[in-house]
Amino acid sequence: MKMAIVIDGKKLAKQINARTQQQVTELVEQKIQPGIAVILVGEDPASKMYTRSKQRKAETLGMKSILKEFPQDTSEQTVLNAIKELNEDASIHAILVQAPLPPQIDADMVTSAIVPSKDVDGFHPQNLGRLYANQHGNYPVACTPKGIMTMLAAYQVPLTGQHAVIVGRSILVGKPMAALLMNADATVSVAGHHTKDLAALTQQADILIVATGIGHLIKAEFVKPGAVVIDVGIEHDQDGKLIGDVDFDAVEKLARAITPVPGGVGPMTIATLMQQTVELAKWSQLNG
Amino acid sequence: MKMAIVIDGKKLAKQINARTQQQVTELVEQKIQPGIAVILVGEDPASKMYTRSKQRKAETLGMKSILKEFPQDTSEQTVLNAIKELNEDASIHAILVQAPLPPQIDADMVTSAIVPSKDVDGFHPQNLGRLYANQHGNYPVACTPKGIMTMLAAYQVPLTGQHAVIVGRSILVGKPMAALLMNADATVSVAGHHTKDLAALTQQADILIVATGIGHLIKAEFVKPGAVVIDVGIEHDQDGKLIGDVDFDAVEKLARAITPVPGGVGPMTIATLMQQTVELAKWSQLNG
Repeated sequence: MKMAIVIDGKKLAKQINARTQQQVTELVEQKIQPGIAVILVGEDPASKMYTRSKQRKAETLGMKSILKEFPQDTSEQTVLNAIKELNEDASIHAILVQAPLPPQIDADMVTSAIVPSKDVDGFHPQNLGRLYANQHGNYPVACTPKGIMTMLAAYQVPLTGQHAVIVGRSILVGKPMAALLMNADATVSVAGHHTKDLAALTQQADILIVATGIGHLIKAEFVKPGAVVIDVGIEHDQDGKLIGDVDFDAVEKLARAITPVPGGVGPMTIATLMQQTVELAKWSQLNG
Repeated sequence: MKMAIVIDGKKLAKQINARTQQQVTELVEQKIQPGIAVILVGEDPASKMYTRSKQRKAETLGMKSILKEFPQDTSEQTVLNAIKELNEDASIHAILVQAPLPPQIDADMVTSAIVPSKDVDGFHPQNLGRLYANQHGNYPVACTPKGIMTMLAAYQVPLTGQHAVIVGRSILVGKPMAALLMNADATVSVAGHHTKDLAALTQQADILIVATGIGHLIKAEFVKPGAVVIDVGIEHDQDGKLIGDVDFDAVEKLARAITPVPGGVGPMTIATLMQQTVELAKWSQLNG
């Protein structure tokens, strides 16, 4: 039986990280050490793990890395003050606030407080708007969808005129993904939990991108034979095993290419985050 | 034979204009006269006609209205200076730059120069980004799609879980339309000129919105019986008659509801522009 190409996000991330490390070395020789600051509010173990791994990766690649930790009951003003300080800190080129934030803090407010030129997550409305308007110039883009574009390019997946179906509409993944694919002249459909007949839509996808947080939502009958399937989900099944939003074993049999979980989108997101931190450091020199 | 409901944009626009006029009267009593400024570069007769009709409408409704006209060879800096002056003019609450601009002027640059709180067209990346992120709060939204949302609401067209297909991806219509419909929990597909089998996609639409500038592109076989069809196009046929992107006579026979051309989307766009100018005047008081 013909099986799908398994898209090796881990290998590709390694290549990107090697290039990033090289660029950091070159920048450091020019006395510019790229710097990233992560703000973490609360004690969520998964968030702690994610921020720590981002920090460790940045340090491994030779960057400056700051972690600002705040307790769960921190006021919005305290977080805004921390952002203001980082906005003004010339040694920091990238600022990210780890999601989720506690309910007393307005995520929209926090997102808009980061200066657009240091918004490494690409969530600031100005950056999201520039992306959606397909403006030229340098601006950060959300790392998960940007990493997916890098994967699609690396595996030479054609985009022009292809039907890309995106399941999930978050500003972390679905919405910037839709913007990037529209900008690449794909036909783009965006489904959410309100979508009536999800399978009828996903079956039409040449490129299917799933980011729902629902383990194994996408079965074989949701997928057109020959489709490229990108799985952004990462959940634990009943046995504690890591699984994605796509039933990999079933879909692998008919897809043309598919990302595994783990080892697909995950490593690409963090590699893209590092890559974009270096880009922001470079762009900061261009803008004066 | 059962024929589609013809959505009466002209009648609805009249109702909106009556309400706008009432609001202007109330604001003037509070010594706040809403003010709109239109910048026109060049001699394009259609653009001249549009700006004049916007200006006339604003005056009819009791607003202050300024027209800044520049010759075709005006420099970008001159236009940016005019915008800066209007940004600082407290008597002006809404600024719009009539499209198209001559090639020596960067449209992205001009769009970003208007202060977001006076960006009545909703084209500033920050406003587009806030819309795409579905942020709460007050911000302007592109007038044509906002007017279409008003029409859909007036005719009680359900949106949640419906499949909306948008043909055309401009930042004037297609992209903000997609954002508004996603925010309303519709399943949204966006097609462009690269789309391979357009009819296969549009046939699935519960709500079909067409903004391509190609007269009578959408024939009966492109439309699902019972669909709601919104036609943003306005072209002249060989005989000089105004036609839309939809073959009205053919599609009327199977749609549930359809907008005519003229008298559909057009009057709603200008009514929404006036409505939003008043909103911007009100919001300017809230923000200090």
